[in-house]
Amino acid sequence: MNSRFMTRAIELAKKASAEGEVPVGAVVVKDGKIIGEGYNMREQKKNALSHAEIEAINAACKTLGDWRLDNCTIYVTLEPCPMCAGAIINARISEVVFGAYDLNMGCMDSVSNIAALPFAAETTVYGGIKEDECKKILTDFFEGVRK
Amino acid sequence: MNSRFMTRAIELAKKASAEGEVPVGAVVVKDGKIIGEGYNMREQKKNALSHAEIEAINAACKTLGDWRLDNCTIYVTLEPCPMCAGAIINARISEVVFGAYDLNMGCMDSVSNIAALPFAAETTVYGGIKEDECKKILTDFFEGVRK
Repeated sequence: MNSRFMTRAIELAKKASAEGEVPVGAVVVKDGKIIGEGYNMREQKKNALSHAEIEAINAACKTLGDWRLDNCTIYVTLEPCPMCAGAIINARISEVVFGAYDLNMGCMDSVSNIAALPFAAETTVYGGIKEDECKKILTDFFEGVRK
Repeated sequence: MNSRFMTRAIELAKKASAEGEVPVGAVVVKDGKIIGEGYNMREQKKNALSHAEIEAINAACKTLGDWRLDNCTIYVTLEPCPMCAGAIINARISEVVFGAYDLNMGCMDSVSNIAALPFAAETTVYGGIKEDECKKILTDFFEGVRK
């Protein structure tokens, strides 16, 4: 784990916010290099699948030309929802580092823990990394929406 | 629920099988019409995300020009994995009809039940529809692989 990659995920989340999207950013890292990144684009792409993690995994699979992302780490500013948690496990990503907890949809600790199921035995999860900064981007965004 | 849509999902699964993919097929239906369909393309697309349900949801979002697939039903030959179960809920699909149970990865009954979590309160799931036929396509495929 290297917190500078979370800094990049936070930059991406801010980009999402500037484009009117719920601000979540993600990067996939292998051997100390970013091989895929993305941010939430659900509204722009009009697609329920376009969460930050899915965008980043998609990009990483393209970079490697492989659906297997073994020995990769994903850094994401918000705890993965069930779709993204499942995508991470399907792609065989070894390590998940997330920022803010998601008490409504989070499925790597908060509401449920998909990473604790038998098929996810190879996946290690670290939550609450740069938590305050990741949370603040979301709080600021939703306060802005309310105004 | 209309079993003729499961018949189409089975056709799609057979197409996957003929292309050397683990045979799973899916269709998204709204107002009695197919608005998106797909089959597992993980090997061909070299992408961990390319499950049948994801392909079908992607196509349906494009058809409607909306990430919300309210009042839609998805028919899929195999119980959804966590990624696909989560994608179905994120897309607000109302009804899930699946064929064979997946005792290794199934997250709408077998290993876990994501549809039973509070955020999935609007989603109804019917499992084991045309179960034998859906199961046989998979059994035949894996027997072929072993030979």
